[in-house]
Amino acid sequence: MIDFSCDYNCGCAPEILAAISAANESQHATYGFDTYSQRGKEKIRAAVGNPEADVYFLVGGTQTNATVLSAILRPWEGVVSAGSGHIAVHESGAVEATGHKVLTVAADDCGRIEPDTLRAYLRGFYADETYPHMVQPGAVYLSHPTEYGGLYGAAALREIRAICDEYGLKLFVDGARLAYALASPETDVTLRLLGEVCDVFYIGGTKCGALLGEAVVFRREQKGFFPAHKQRGALLAKGFLLGLQFDTLFTDGLYLRLGRQGTDCAFTLREGLRAMAIPFRPESGSNQQFPVLSSDQLKKLDGKIGYEIWQHLPDGGAVIRLCASWRTTRADVDAVLDALRA
Amino acid sequence: MIDFSCDYNCGCAPEILAAISAANESQHATYGFDTYSQRGKEKIRAAVGNPEADVYFLVGGTQTNATVLSAILRPWEGVVSAGSGHIAVHESGAVEATGHKVLTVAADDCGRIEPDTLRAYLRGFYADETYPHMVQPGAVYLSHPTEYGGLYGAAALREIRAICDEYGLKLFVDGARLAYALASPETDVTLRLLGEVCDVFYIGGTKCGALLGEAVVFRREQKGFFPAHKQRGALLAKGFLLGLQFDTLFTDGLYLRLGRQGTDCAFTLREGLRAMAIPFRPESGSNQQFPVLSSDQLKKLDGKIGYEIWQHLPDGGAVIRLCASWRTTRADVDAVLDALRA
Amino acid sequence: MIDFSCDYNCGCAPEILAAISAANESQHATYGFDTYSQRGKEKIRAAVGNPEADVYFLVGGTQTNATVLSAILRPWEGVVSAGSGHIAVHESGAVEATGHKVLTVAADDCGRIEPDTLRAYLRGFYADETYPHMVQPGAVYLSHPTEYGGLYGAAALREIRAICDEYGLKLFVDGARLAYALASPETDVTLRLLGEVCDVFYIGGTKCGALLGEAVVFRREQKGFFPAHKQRGALLAKGFLLGLQFDTLFTDGLYLRLGRQGTDCAFTLREGLRAMAIPFRPESGSNQQFPVLSSDQLKKLDGKIGYEIWQHLPDGGAVIRLCASWRTTRADVDAVLDALRA
Amino acid sequence: MIDFSCDYNCGCAPEILAAISAANESQHATYGFDTYSQRGKEKIRAAVGNPEADVYFLVGGTQTNATVLSAILRPWEGVVSAGSGHIAVHESGAVEATGHKVLTVAADDCGRIEPDTLRAYLRGFYADETYPHMVQPGAVYLSHPTEYGGLYGAAALREIRAICDEYGLKLFVDGARLAYALASPETDVTLRLLGEVCDVFYIGGTKCGALLGEAVVFRREQKGFFPAHKQRGALLAKGFLLGLQFDTLFTDGLYLRLGRQGTDCAFTLREGLRAMAIPFRPESGSNQQFPVLSSDQLKKLDGKIGYEIWQHLPDGGAVIRLCASWRTTRADVDAVLDALRA
Repeated sequence: MIDFSCDYNCGCAPEILAAISAANESQHATYGFDTYSQRGKEKIRAAVGNPEADVYFLVGGTQTNATVLSAILRPWEGVVSAGSGHIAVHESGAVEATGHKVLTVAADDCGRIEPDTLRAYLRGFYADETYPHMVQPGAVYLSHPTEYGGLYGAAALREIRAICDEYGLKLFVDGARLAYALASPETDVTLRLLGEVCDVFYIGGTKCGALLGEAVVFRREQKGFFPAHKQRGALLAKGFLLGLQFDTLFTDGLYLRLGRQGTDCAFTLREGLRAMAIPFRPESGSNQQFPVLSSDQLKKLDGKIGYEIWQHLPDGGAVIRLCASWRTTRADVDAVLDALRA
Repeated sequence: MIDFSCDYNCGCAPEILAAISAANESQHATYGFDTYSQRGKEKIRAAVGNPEADVYFLVGGTQTNATVLSAILRPWEGVVSAGSGHIAVHESGAVEATGHKVLTVAADDCGRIEPDTLRAYLRGFYADETYPHMVQPGAVYLSHPTEYGGLYGAAALREIRAICDEYGLKLFVDGARLAYALASPETDVTLRLLGEVCDVFYIGGTKCGALLGEAVVFRREQKGFFPAHKQRGALLAKGFLLGLQFDTLFTDGLYLRLGRQGTDCAFTLREGLRAMAIPFRPESGSNQQFPVLSSDQLKKLDGKIGYEIWQHLPDGGAVIRLCASWRTTRADVDAVLDALRA
Repeated sequence: MIDFSCDYNCGCAPEILAAISAANESQHATYGFDTYSQRGKEKIRAAVGNPEADVYFLVGGTQTNATVLSAILRPWEGVVSAGSGHIAVHESGAVEATGHKVLTVAADDCGRIEPDTLRAYLRGFYADETYPHMVQPGAVYLSHPTEYGGLYGAAALREIRAICDEYGLKLFVDGARLAYALASPETDVTLRLLGEVCDVFYIGGTKCGALLGEAVVFRREQKGFFPAHKQRGALLAKGFLLGLQFDTLFTDGLYLRLGRQGTDCAFTLREGLRAMAIPFRPESGSNQQFPVLSSDQLKKLDGKIGYEIWQHLPDGGAVIRLCASWRTTRADVDAVLDALRA
Repeated sequence: MIDFSCDYNCGCAPEILAAISAANESQHATYGFDTYSQRGKEKIRAAVGNPEADVYFLVGGTQTNATVLSAILRPWEGVVSAGSGHIAVHESGAVEATGHKVLTVAADDCGRIEPDTLRAYLRGFYADETYPHMVQPGAVYLSHPTEYGGLYGAAALREIRAICDEYGLKLFVDGARLAYALASPETDVTLRLLGEVCDVFYIGGTKCGALLGEAVVFRREQKGFFPAHKQRGALLAKGFLLGLQFDTLFTDGLYLRLGRQGTDCAFTLREGLRAMAIPFRPESGSNQQFPVLSSDQLKKLDGKIGYEIWQHLPDGGAVIRLCASWRTTRADVDAVLDALRA
């Protein structure tokens, strides 16, 4: 069975496995002071176009979100997130466990916070005379792509940045699947733009070809983040293991290439499904596709293609999630389409 | 240069690298529900001799300590630790960040909490009429081996268990370097004994031959630890990566074999140093050795052997730490001894 | 100007002021071990009809909610609350600051959680296969009366209790304005019933005639709550100050008498407003009334009657809050009605 | 029996009770926006000599310490305290419950941190190469007087301030018993000096003549402390109750007069005990006295004078604590001396 249910069910890109194997027998400086990590950080600073960027390698997404947010918020502040945001739903309260409320606002169909929504929320917040008794908004959390594959455009991000400036908020972008967004023709958001508009964002490794790891990029030096990420258990003793992965990912354009593989496959899949008049809910321009299948169509996939039920529908059909990844091949995509056509 | 400064400066045992490589291209169930993880847990339950044991795989030591302690303590409770304990000194306040005080007691030269010390502490605590205004002791944290290579004996652990029972405390043993303790002829503590006396302990992978990972073993089902470790960012999306390492470590006695390699090398080193009349501070029966070297001796090592200064001495000498590990060879040990003899 | 904007803008019932004055010069045992506190607790146990009840006196509502919830929840658990619940909106994230998420569900117009809503939420939660990655519901928070003056009936509370039992949740009722609910003819909920169905609830003092203070009632001994409330800064050194207030409130039916004064005045006010065909949003059977006034009517009140704008309406009118309290007189109520009739 | 065991076992100064009684029937603005609170803050700003000082009224000491420290520390920082400091011992881990470690240093016999001790601690901390893995010192906590009645001098406080500046630490002084220190001829520390050298300190009310309440004084505007103290349950709905007490205490020198009463009585007591050749451990220049009594002397007090055992001595004697307060009279002191002379 070919499993399209998620993008974190296999190992890593061959280049990374080769790098780990090559480094395995050598001895390395610890806690991120190794040569790979220094090189990986340098390459990320170059890719972001900001020599002042402060880069850290952490292990996983939930850990990264909670560690970053607790480092940039003050105790009385919360973080604004889409109600469907990963931190609001699927992290077992990791952000709250650090003492901060997740303040949810409505998102569009794709899980994006629209600038107008954010502005209206903040205006309404400060218009309420009782606001000093409420959790103060201190940061905005976006993910790009969102949980539903939604992609921000550069103009929207710039507008959100301006709103953050107006209200004194920090901007944090969760890039767990960033490679797939960077590879999408449907958004003009680049690494440089993220480095410019975000106070901090992260470049996802785990879902984008690395064995594991996320690269956190602060626009300016973040004094205290070293002990902060140690304290949250996010500092790896064998830091070289993360450093060499990002060093590899940012060598010869590998990160973008892996992203393109996932997004291209997803687009081929999307095209094929569209040709069968299968609708999507929502439309996605990145590696995750959300087709609406009838119960007959679902049966055709069963036993051949792994998928995730996203939403059961009253008629027995379902919205399902099909994830392409850096490892997906054209043949895998054909298998889905063939199964449905059968 | 051969680096003896720590036991987490290189990759993993070849068997593990092979297993990762073999599994890399396949698709696996996520979040620890994969076959490797199930098999690894089964083998650990067998090794511990407790079919009811509840086993979880986490990523690193600091994360494991904070996640476990916050799961077993109530908000008003603290954890009793040696003042030199890792949680008390070198985890950037990870335990306090979960809201719990580390209550320190004096340790012996080897960093061990002696049963009498623990008993006296608890008696003194409850004898103080103001104790309800203080942090209530809720658990005891030991490490085996300790930060100084100290090893508990089975009798001491049983006595500590009895004290814990008397005062209603949980017992947690940090086994970050457990393989080296299990391999040491100087202690009779076994995995089975740990499974018997501890409410929870962990079997260290990171420092004992794994690429990364720690296996937490609860004596009884720990309802709630799944969301608890997710919340602390300790649940790996690619759980198979940890599962297959422990599956490998607990196949054909690999874990013990790797431990023996480190401890045997350390003993050879100890013997060689003793033969040069070099004293130790303290004496250690596991993979870490703490010789006291003169400034002349230190110079002989410089540039040839990596070591960690443990304590500078007024005469220019130092107590240093030399760590053998699963990867250390007889030739490495000879290199140290040769350098000193030169 | 007569201020109806809230029920915590003046001191305390004369009986309580007299008791404080009488005790002022004497010396008392500290931290709640004084005679008054012991007596107050005894009387509350009797009123609740549970000699095993464990009673504590705390200072204010936000503190009480956060202290109780953090004591009864495990780290991975959250508390289910109406979206309009005080803990969800107006406590500056006090519950989240203790590490727990507030899980909001829809309430009816009066701010009550209907049993069916709770059941549907819990069914839906466990029906979602990803629930182990989410915050686990650990307790239900209700307030009686609610923020909108809503009152539960005994049958609804019993049904909620049954749902809590089915799903293993604790039930906590915030009784900041409990006196007014107990005095209302529109609910059959008694102190005994609360003592029976709640794991823990509190009897509000601050808004019900005390200078300050809330009495927390656990159905069973709550081991650890003494250090827990000390830790949250909720244990008063001069505990007698709280104890004597509750001793006084629970002597000769004072608490109910004070509640009746507030609720009776509110009912007279409601009748008068109804006679002027003024609608309410929502209808309330306790001391807070929420009439919908036109802009003309609002002007008639201005400068004469203090009120709180609850919701601005597009036509220039508003829903306002008028709070009667233990201190409100018939003359005060007439002043409101006269102003509107003018 | 006359109880000298503590200074928080009775109500408040008659002037304060009168003020509460006078205000009891009136209606006041809530949450500290009342006239009394504004006036009390103004008077404190004048007394401190800093028109920019940001003043808040909180309820009790433990609450104040935890609320202030959590507001001024970053998550990875801890607070340096004497090992005998109240936050380190007798607050049930309130500071740790907000996520911060209390970093203890040795104190002198009187519980004071000597500037040299602080400097040595900080030098040692940063000299340790592993310091980034440790809790970063972020603030210094002193109490004046200390738990043992110890008093800082102005020179020592200025030196500690300079050390804090050198190392980037905040300085916080706990003034739970400040009135007694201000009244002592044995220290030249004034309110103005505290306002100058501290980032934040508090003026104790509970132990110094108020019914309850502590006034927190920040040297500069502390953006965010309003929601911060609301979040920790430290914002009183009936804020006027605290405001009017401090308004009264800072009218016509009442605060100093109450302090003088306590300290003068303590000095008379000290003189009398010295005349009987009774030693002190330690010597104290404020309202708490710590005489060393033989078992015979203890028996003479029993049943007549309430005292607190501070330390049992092997010979059956004890160091005891005798607290004078604003309410202690010359006759009370004579009762102690007469009892011992009997």
